[in-house]
Amino acid sequence: MVPAEKEDNIILVGKKPPMNYVLAVVTQFNSGATEVAIKARGKAISRAVDVAEIVKNRFLNTVKVKEIRIGTETVTNQENKQTNVSSIEIYLTK
Amino acid sequence: MVPAEKEDNIILVGKKPPMNYVLAVVTQFNSGATEVAIKARGKAISRAVDVAEIVKNRFLNTVKVKEIRIGTETVTNQENKQTNVSSIEIYLTK
Repeated sequence: MVPAEKEDNIILVGKKPPMNYVLAVVTQFNSGATEVAIKARGKAISRAVDVAEIVKNRFLNTVKVKEIRIGTETVTNQENKQTNVSSIEIYLTK
Repeated sequence: MVPAEKEDNIILVGKKPPMNYVLAVVTQFNSGATEVAIKARGKAISRAVDVAEIVKNRFLNTVKVKEIRIGTETVTNQENKQTNVSSIEIYLTK
């Protein structure tokens, strides 16, 4: 479990280039965060893993993967139908 | 860590429809496996998460995610250049 006071350090990965999110994560750690959560849904899940790996291997070698959770979220699409989409949460710690 | 004798139960997720891999995982469990590893690289990572979630939520409710690992693998592409690709391993247990 992640303590409530740390829930602010969340980077939501979407469709932008991975490096945008990498820099956001690095900035969080450099601002004093000891834990950052990288979250994504659907096709962005692969990009979230890329972001975590790039942060770890190229920018902050002291950062480790603390926990990875996967889940399913129900979203309502443009036609007002409910569909399921997978999600991932990658918790990095210094 | 996964004991060596269980390393056979690996489903490598690629570009086919998710349900193909879901059925492969379900078949492994129904054949007596107590642990199945779902692996994927690159863009197939999202699909691997879908497969794990569908198995858990729709087919085998007793199956749980035991561990998730992410990593980086170096692959040689068609132009003989080396590139990095992210990977995921999702370990499901009954």
